[in-house]
Amino acid sequence: MTPTFPELKNDLFIKALKRESIQRTPVWMMRQAGRYLPEYRKVRQQAGSFMDLCRNTELACEVTLQPLRRYKIDAAILFSDILTIPDALGLGLYFETGEGPKFKRTILADISVDELDVIDTSSDLDYVYDAVNLIRKELAGSVPLIGFSGSPWTLATYMIEGQGSKTFAKAKSFLYQRPEEADLLLDKLAQSVAYYLGRQIRAGAQAVQIFDSWGGALSAQAYQRFSLKPMRKVMSLLQEEFGEELVPTIAFTKGGGLWLQNMLNLDTTALGVDWTIELSAARRIVGDKCALQGNLDPAILLTNPDTIRTEVAKVLASYGHGSGHVFNLGHGITPEVPPDNAKSFFDAVHELSPAYHK
Amino acid sequence: MTPTFPELKNDLFIKALKRESIQRTPVWMMRQAGRYLPEYRKVRQQAGSFMDLCRNTELACEVTLQPLRRYKIDAAILFSDILTIPDALGLGLYFETGEGPKFKRTILADISVDELDVIDTSSDLDYVYDAVNLIRKELAGSVPLIGFSGSPWTLATYMIEGQGSKTFAKAKSFLYQRPEEADLLLDKLAQSVAYYLGRQIRAGAQAVQIFDSWGGALSAQAYQRFSLKPMRKVMSLLQEEFGEELVPTIAFTKGGGLWLQNMLNLDTTALGVDWTIELSAARRIVGDKCALQGNLDPAILLTNPDTIRTEVAKVLASYGHGSGHVFNLGHGITPEVPPDNAKSFFDAVHELSPAYHK
Repeated sequence: MTPTFPELKNDLFIKALKRESIQRTPVWMMRQAGRYLPEYRKVRQQAGSFMDLCRNTELACEVTLQPLRRYKIDAAILFSDILTIPDALGLGLYFETGEGPKFKRTILADISVDELDVIDTSSDLDYVYDAVNLIRKELAGSVPLIGFSGSPWTLATYMIEGQGSKTFAKAKSFLYQRPEEADLLLDKLAQSVAYYLGRQIRAGAQAVQIFDSWGGALSAQAYQRFSLKPMRKVMSLLQEEFGEELVPTIAFTKGGGLWLQNMLNLDTTALGVDWTIELSAARRIVGDKCALQGNLDPAILLTNPDTIRTEVAKVLASYGHGSGHVFNLGHGITPEVPPDNAKSFFDAVHELSPAYHK
Repeated sequence: MTPTFPELKNDLFIKALKRESIQRTPVWMMRQAGRYLPEYRKVRQQAGSFMDLCRNTELACEVTLQPLRRYKIDAAILFSDILTIPDALGLGLYFETGEGPKFKRTILADISVDELDVIDTSSDLDYVYDAVNLIRKELAGSVPLIGFSGSPWTLATYMIEGQGSKTFAKAKSFLYQRPEEADLLLDKLAQSVAYYLGRQIRAGAQAVQIFDSWGGALSAQAYQRFSLKPMRKVMSLLQEEFGEELVPTIAFTKGGGLWLQNMLNLDTTALGVDWTIELSAARRIVGDKCALQGNLDPAILLTNPDTIRTEVAKVLASYGHGSGHVFNLGHGITPEVPPDNAKSFFDAVHELSPAYHK
């Protein structure tokens, strides 16, 4: 059912996710195609707006591949935005210079939960699937390609607030006051996310990651119902659709370290963790039930090569020996990072990790 | 050594902190004297700037007492700012309308760690101690008065960044690149915080709380060295100064749920927790080693009386039976909360908590 692509040459990332024996720890970096790279800023300027860049198949492919030309990276990740789904659902995503994403229309105020559609073949998201397909072809089997989506709860926060938020006042008021309606909204979004990731897989994505950027803002109880449960629904729908053929999945709740035990219910191939939890502690919790991805504090990339190497060594030591760890940051790289520091990060993982796979 | 004040009538708060048997759970609210109250906004306007209000002993006393006139609250907390210490150290705190606190001078850029003073008798902080003294007198023993300070690490973030931050790029770069110098800065700040809290206790504070607002932004390892260790130093200095006479202490790291086990080393009377950790889980960790304070998500106060009551009931049930719990929010109340909703919060704790003390 998936088109034929060249054989995968570097399968370290996939093997680590499956906890199969490997020679060194694979590494990639959240937001690795981004503003810290001068070649990215050049293409970004050429493309027009941020969404123009996402919608331009060739340029989205180009910026996806840029970091792979500079650094020794073990996976590519589709260049896109986490808010493509609400945009395709008619909310009108736009960006103003120097500010975060905003929507022209919001759920509750302008569009009711009942009125909200679910993403399907008619949705204007072919630009995403086309980009996945082109990137996969261009990679020519060099490294695997990761597709991704925002989590239902994370999408819902922007869709209700109309923009980013510190307190999530509107979104949380909705959850607490109208929990059944919130369940319905999140269930619809779970269906949309599953469809969206399924299409990315069919277009060539060799793994998929769900970014639950704002799950950590919820209380322990609210997280279970309004973030974890809809993510579990996404996983179930994907497992139903693809069966044994499902590619590896990664679920990442920023600030979710306290809930790793619960996240095991997602039945995902790997869990992403940020830097607030020690990998050693996370590994004790997940045991042999899934792999882990993370978790260097991206602020460390602002320092210098020696410090970066020291801190990479600490993360490797914390995970310890054996497979099941994909090295990454605990959140996206920030625009201020000098590109040479990113190089030190990748080099350190390459040089220091083989000792943990003997 | 402490001046004589009227006998304390309502000692529920103190007893809960000491885990002594009580009839119901005491309750107060972080930022209970604040912008959600119309009478606060009136005084604030009258006072001039925010710092003018903090520096005006009578008005600071007035706004401290305002919420106690409206609601059934079991403790008063000094009205002040967490950044009084850096201001007194010469950094020049100021506020611009609609923005967070800022400093005219910053540590590292304008003042070196070596040059930085430690708060002592010569520091311009008498306005704080005078306010504590006046509030204590005005309370006339009705409820206990809480003094407070920002934690060394939280003060350091503002002192290095010059303002609030999302990523703490400068402060974290400093920690990671010059850890010994960071230790020195945090040690100096720990001495300042201990002196400052000691003076508040001598002026009449019957408990003190350390607000570690930004500890949760650190990695597990960095938290131990740069936030927990200096807080431990504050506690040691206070224990040294007051011995058996030391008032109850509360340490609150926002986002610190993962590190409660380590926080037990603070040897504090109570630990504050935010809403990301279940009180039942927190209680299992702290056992009989300290009391707990928290942890309703302040966003719930934006809903309605029924929802507030339901969620208060869940928090009480999560802690369970017996003393050792001070009911509070998991962070400060926000300006948008309707005052009647705050009333529902206090009423719910009063009505529902006696069942847990039979």
